[in-house]
Amino acid sequence: MTVSKETVEEANRKAVDRMMDSEPVWVDLAPASKKMGIRGKTLLHAGPPLRWEDASGPMKGAIIGAAIYEGWAETEKQAARLAEEGEIELDCDHHHNAAGPMAGVISPSMPVYELEDKKFGNRTYSNMNEGIGKVLRYGAYSKEVLDRLRWMSGTVAPVLQATAKGMLKAGGGLALKPMIAQALTMGDDCHNRYVATTSLFAKQIAPFLVRTGFDPKTLSEVSRFIDGNNFTMLNMGMAAGKAMTLAGHDVKYSTIVTVMSRNGTDAGIWVSGLGNRWFAAKAPVPKGLWFPGFTEADANPDLGDSSITETAGFGGFAMAAAPAIVSWVGGSVQGALDVTEKMYEITQAQHRHFLIPFLDFRGTPVGIDLRKVLKTGVTPMINTGIAHRKAGIGQVGAGTVSFPMQVFKDAFEAYVDEYDA
Amino acid sequence: MTVSKETVEEANRKAVDRMMDSEPVWVDLAPASKKMGIRGKTLLHAGPPLRWEDASGPMKGAIIGAAIYEGWAETEKQAARLAEEGEIELDCDHHHNAAGPMAGVISPSMPVYELEDKKFGNRTYSNMNEGIGKVLRYGAYSKEVLDRLRWMSGTVAPVLQATAKGMLKAGGGLALKPMIAQALTMGDDCHNRYVATTSLFAKQIAPFLVRTGFDPKTLSEVSRFIDGNNFTMLNMGMAAGKAMTLAGHDVKYSTIVTVMSRNGTDAGIWVSGLGNRWFAAKAPVPKGLWFPGFTEADANPDLGDSSITETAGFGGFAMAAAPAIVSWVGGSVQGALDVTEKMYEITQAQHRHFLIPFLDFRGTPVGIDLRKVLKTGVTPMINTGIAHRKAGIGQVGAGTVSFPMQVFKDAFEAYVDEYDA
Repeated sequence: MTVSKETVEEANRKAVDRMMDSEPVWVDLAPASKKMGIRGKTLLHAGPPLRWEDASGPMKGAIIGAAIYEGWAETEKQAARLAEEGEIELDCDHHHNAAGPMAGVISPSMPVYELEDKKFGNRTYSNMNEGIGKVLRYGAYSKEVLDRLRWMSGTVAPVLQATAKGMLKAGGGLALKPMIAQALTMGDDCHNRYVATTSLFAKQIAPFLVRTGFDPKTLSEVSRFIDGNNFTMLNMGMAAGKAMTLAGHDVKYSTIVTVMSRNGTDAGIWVSGLGNRWFAAKAPVPKGLWFPGFTEADANPDLGDSSITETAGFGGFAMAAAPAIVSWVGGSVQGALDVTEKMYEITQAQHRHFLIPFLDFRGTPVGIDLRKVLKTGVTPMINTGIAHRKAGIGQVGAGTVSFPMQVFKDAFEAYVDEYDA
Repeated sequence: MTVSKETVEEANRKAVDRMMDSEPVWVDLAPASKKMGIRGKTLLHAGPPLRWEDASGPMKGAIIGAAIYEGWAETEKQAARLAEEGEIELDCDHHHNAAGPMAGVISPSMPVYELEDKKFGNRTYSNMNEGIGKVLRYGAYSKEVLDRLRWMSGTVAPVLQATAKGMLKAGGGLALKPMIAQALTMGDDCHNRYVATTSLFAKQIAPFLVRTGFDPKTLSEVSRFIDGNNFTMLNMGMAAGKAMTLAGHDVKYSTIVTVMSRNGTDAGIWVSGLGNRWFAAKAPVPKGLWFPGFTEADANPDLGDSSITETAGFGGFAMAAAPAIVSWVGGSVQGALDVTEKMYEITQAQHRHFLIPFLDFRGTPVGIDLRKVLKTGVTPMINTGIAHRKAGIGQVGAGTVSFPMQVFKDAFEAYVDEYDA
């Protein structure tokens, strides 16, 4: 064995310290083509690489919707044909420092939040949140869905972009780490419960939003949209998680997991010391609570980049901070506490900034260590939304899911190869 | 014994049902002279009735400040002389369906929030919150303090009044009960922690605030004031507590406590079946955490109408919902859980609307029963702010305090007399 235990430990400490030291700040909101250089008929999607023919219903629905939204096709059929014929290039959000919830589809003209890591300089991205139910990220693409996206792009995005610029000018921009830390003391897990974060956001942006120069009616519509959607901050929270994990990525010898993500077909991970190689296995189907009229039979296998929150030490890992979440994802309050307790077994550290009041202000479990997952047999627990398995329908519930053990086994084998360990 | 146990039980059920059914809604914000009919040199104050010569330092400071604010005097000396000579009439907030934090001084030209109980029709009031530290309600009255009050009255109040009118017109106004219920799932106790409530307020008023017609600079200043003061919603929360307890007041035979309040000298209560008679004893000195540079030796005996929150079934009674509050008032997370557990011993019911996620969504303890206090020897626990005992200084800490047993003994004696029980 050429790599000592001390070397790995040191690498892991470095990776997780960098995760915790990362300081993502919201700096802009503008089209992906402009901020991320996405050109032509390219669509980014959640999870590991995926071909159209392997895509699940909701992922296909989101791709169809995005193609119509971009004007590449007029009908579902035309959009599907473009995809089938390879006219639409698919690529992973994570290959572009982005993270999108559920299907996570980002098309060139969609506005994306841009976050800058003030500590390490990285820039990360996410799209805007549409709300729950019949929405693109859950595979719906009706006129109503696309009209909402157009209104968000044409009306909400310019107001929020101007707000971000105002905040940046006045005081360096909206800092995400303190906001997430605060929200974790306010009953959010910051994956599937974003009530506090969205409220804090509304409170903090108000002084700047009112000075953007937009007319009162527009400002009112935008404020009403934020007030009406408690998931408003999910996407920016994910971009923050991406910044944190990216800061911990590419540390030689490190066995810390820096991406966990699902595309509705496969679930895959990255490991800090193994670069951008995906280790993927079949995505599991979540368990949870169902919206009226739906059952487990309607559920698609898990999808979304949103498990970047758990990778960064919040989300499901901070369930103990968010007992009220069980009314949304199911389970019991004790179960929520148990999840957090369990995750300490597979993580490197207790977060220095993300504290859980109910555990006597103990830091959240952060930095999934590949070795500990294999040793304990405990896999990371994710809070998640549940999409209908057919395209065009949307969200049918919310719940929890465990990441498949196979990806950790495969990654460990690769690690042994790579480092002759 | 002429009153049966069943009669008392039924009366108490009715009183507490009415407390829980109350539906306070914010309808206006305008000068006390206009909304409450306060005329001439009258000042309302927190707690039971009080004469100037018996008033503590912070209460005297607040009275002096209010007299200068109203233009009745130009100097501290002149103001004190007016009070000494009986030129200033002092009366209780509670005699006017109002509740004010700490000194709780309301003067004729001060803007007051008006809440209307949509269920029972009562109207209740509170003044506006200035923030923490050197503020009138803690007995400070420097130029800085009075300038802030004038700016609040001249700039903040008109914007918020127009906002309230807009909300009223659009959808019936801002409902306080659901907001408090929501905030209790977000780590607020809604007495000494109002972070979530204030954030929810900012989020919910934004669509209306931007349409008030005020210029962007003014709207920005007002929004910044709200963003910068997490106690913004304390006063409206107290007016909501007043509406709830008022709904349960004046129920014949009921032994439920409907007011608990302190004026810095005495602590007093009302009992539902005993009308507006005060039962008062010496106010205790709180224990807690101290702002830098201050110690327990600086602390004034407890003051404020804010214990109307505990009377209504939240505040200290909901400590278990707000574990992060221990970093503000002292004690441990387990201690916070213990307080709530203990309060079930002296209350009539578990609240139907105010649930504590961490206690498996158990309702908060609501409706203090005089009989149970005497039987168990357990007195109500209050979360409170701590004022410097000298006039002119302000807040020196925050903590907890138990209501004195004597007032419950006296009230019970009066009950026995009244009902020949």
